[in-house]
Amino acid sequence: MPEFFNVVAPDQAFQVLKKHLPTTVEAEKIDTVDALGRVTSEDIASPEDLPAFARSTMDGYSVRAQDTFGASEGMPAYLEVVGEVPMGKAANLSLAVGQTAVAYTGGMLAGDADSVVMMERTQRVDERTIEVLRPVAPGENVVQVGEDIRQGDLVLPKGHVIRPQDIGGLLALGLSRIKVSKRPRVAIVSTGDELVPPNQKIAPGQIRDINTYTISGLVTECGGVPVPIAMVEDNFEAQKTAAVEALKKGDIVVFSAGSSVSSRDMTAAVFDGLGEPGVLTHGISIKPGKPTIMGMAKGKPLIGLPGNPVSAMVVFDLTVRPTIYHLSGCTSPPALSTTTAKLSRDVPSQAGREDYVQVRLTGENGNLEAEPIFGKSNLIYTLVRADGVVRVPLEKGGLYAGEEVSVRIY
Amino acid sequence: MPEFFNVVAPDQAFQVLKKHLPTTVEAEKIDTVDALGRVTSEDIASPEDLPAFARSTMDGYSVRAQDTFGASEGMPAYLEVVGEVPMGKAANLSLAVGQTAVAYTGGMLAGDADSVVMMERTQRVDERTIEVLRPVAPGENVVQVGEDIRQGDLVLPKGHVIRPQDIGGLLALGLSRIKVSKRPRVAIVSTGDELVPPNQKIAPGQIRDINTYTISGLVTECGGVPVPIAMVEDNFEAQKTAAVEALKKGDIVVFSAGSSVSSRDMTAAVFDGLGEPGVLTHGISIKPGKPTIMGMAKGKPLIGLPGNPVSAMVVFDLTVRPTIYHLSGCTSPPALSTTTAKLSRDVPSQAGREDYVQVRLTGENGNLEAEPIFGKSNLIYTLVRADGVVRVPLEKGGLYAGEEVSVRIY
Repeated sequence: MPEFFNVVAPDQAFQVLKKHLPTTVEAEKIDTVDALGRVTSEDIASPEDLPAFARSTMDGYSVRAQDTFGASEGMPAYLEVVGEVPMGKAANLSLAVGQTAVAYTGGMLAGDADSVVMMERTQRVDERTIEVLRPVAPGENVVQVGEDIRQGDLVLPKGHVIRPQDIGGLLALGLSRIKVSKRPRVAIVSTGDELVPPNQKIAPGQIRDINTYTISGLVTECGGVPVPIAMVEDNFEAQKTAAVEALKKGDIVVFSAGSSVSSRDMTAAVFDGLGEPGVLTHGISIKPGKPTIMGMAKGKPLIGLPGNPVSAMVVFDLTVRPTIYHLSGCTSPPALSTTTAKLSRDVPSQAGREDYVQVRLTGENGNLEAEPIFGKSNLIYTLVRADGVVRVPLEKGGLYAGEEVSVRIY
Repeated sequence: MPEFFNVVAPDQAFQVLKKHLPTTVEAEKIDTVDALGRVTSEDIASPEDLPAFARSTMDGYSVRAQDTFGASEGMPAYLEVVGEVPMGKAANLSLAVGQTAVAYTGGMLAGDADSVVMMERTQRVDERTIEVLRPVAPGENVVQVGEDIRQGDLVLPKGHVIRPQDIGGLLALGLSRIKVSKRPRVAIVSTGDELVPPNQKIAPGQIRDINTYTISGLVTECGGVPVPIAMVEDNFEAQKTAAVEALKKGDIVVFSAGSSVSSRDMTAAVFDGLGEPGVLTHGISIKPGKPTIMGMAKGKPLIGLPGNPVSAMVVFDLTVRPTIYHLSGCTSPPALSTTTAKLSRDVPSQAGREDYVQVRLTGENGNLEAEPIFGKSNLIYTLVRADGVVRVPLEKGGLYAGEEVSVRIY
């Protein structure tokens, strides 16, 4: 199918794949302490009340609140100190009317106590007696049983990306192993007769393969596992062999296609040879990044990224990133890091096409200026010198100097 | 020194440590492909020109531009096709006046060619002849030698956090091994008589140690290596032993102190026993997080975080995070992830103290509402249920419902 018949709008790019993607995820059980950044594959409910006992939030005395009612500096309540509840120990004493026990921050209350008087609101009379100078309400300065979370309550929903504090929340309940989605494996094939491995010397006409490694870094950043498969020349059989291996080893197949028309046509032919439905679309209406091929085979997404590094980076965000999140079962992917800045100069564009312009940020936070880098999209240093990218929406003919824009920070 | 004499403003918290921190970093050489997120420890200059040869940016014909001057559809320029320069090969032919050679996107130009005519702007006459329908300027459709980066130019400055595209930029130049700062090791000691390991059953009065793991996650997120040392009871000798080991194994020592006054006093005493100058400050004027101890011994920073998980998280951002970045030699640390949102209700505060309020975000991007979670700071689920935190500045007495605020996203 000729390319111009089959170009999708950028906000539809992922949708093309999405309707073909599996809706279930593969799960595995891992140690909670290793779960940073992983995605829960099921709702997790609390197996117990937290805390399991009423805890004091202050250093002071646990009391029966009613014994302090009416207390004041002029007319303190006198209470008998019958002992203390040491930190980390079960309360080994109970309070009768008019009695109290020493309590520590985080420690258990004495039996029949319902509140805690802060140390500062008391005065020691003798070894066995204190004055309480202000009344406390029942429950004051106490964390109640289950106040943090109750048995049966939802700890984390399915599809949640685990943060440091979530690890704490899980471990507090003794949930030391949890079920998470397997990390999607992204098999990467780099194509082009001109490529040599990056640790080799280049001859005239050759360049080093960098897309494999840039894409690997991006995959890692969104929680996938990069699986570099091969660097292959522009030969159909060689690419087909690499693609078959990629389809076997990866949950997602990414080709970094050459930039020539014939090279792109070859990627499309290779994808079509992998199985039904094969190629779904031949392009996205963006600049840079138009020659992006998307397809499906054996239930796995196939994405042919443009060979130009700048295009590859822009298209990655629109296609590979959401696919990785989808296959992770991640319901609300982490927001991309963004900031607002004022454009330093006009950015011309073309209505009906989404433009992505690399920018450098200068100035102080809260007063940032975004300076467009009009480098060619086939220069990797256009990206290295950029701090982020600005999107010029489809319907706009450009952006003006001084306009406030949202910068997606790399 | 009594605590109230020695409390610092939040923006001064890191400064207290900074003036004592080493200004040089320890470096190590690693494979560039493994360098994602690492910090360069020296300026890196380009060893060569990139590209090393003039490359075509189009499929078409490399030409001497002057041979096309004046060409038009009505009066095309006729050029003799003397061959092609295959992808990845050195040009094995040169152009005389009136000659051209087939060029591919990314391929080398023929000798003596200075520009490329797009395929679409030509017409094939016979096996050996094309018509050029529009003139090209010298250099058109060509990436010049060194246009991406020139030999000797700065690739990445010292102190730069390496991104996927930086890995690409380095490898494009054959820089397959680079010098980066060693990851700072953060030795973590959790203290408290009430603590048990998170995989154990708890008895009344006990809770599971979670701060070790929450702090480990935070350390990992900012590029440090968490080194859990021990979970120790509130016993001076035991804590001293753990602290000495932490000081030996870590570049930074973090104590998760108990919450009671006596427990904090013990942490301070332990820090003071480690060497000069010992404890530098006993608190930060924030809520939650006031009881934060900072010190130095043997040239290494000592940080006693409050035991309450919410306080620990807030104080981590103000103290441990910048210390890790400093010891990484990171000159411009990655910005914390933030978003703007409208407060759903009033947040009272107290002038002269910085308040940090946990919030949940609801609504759509661009129209987010931040709903304060007034959970106690000793509840881990206050953090688990939060999407981020809002700072109430020192000089403000609170924030109003409907006010636009910046939310630091966790």
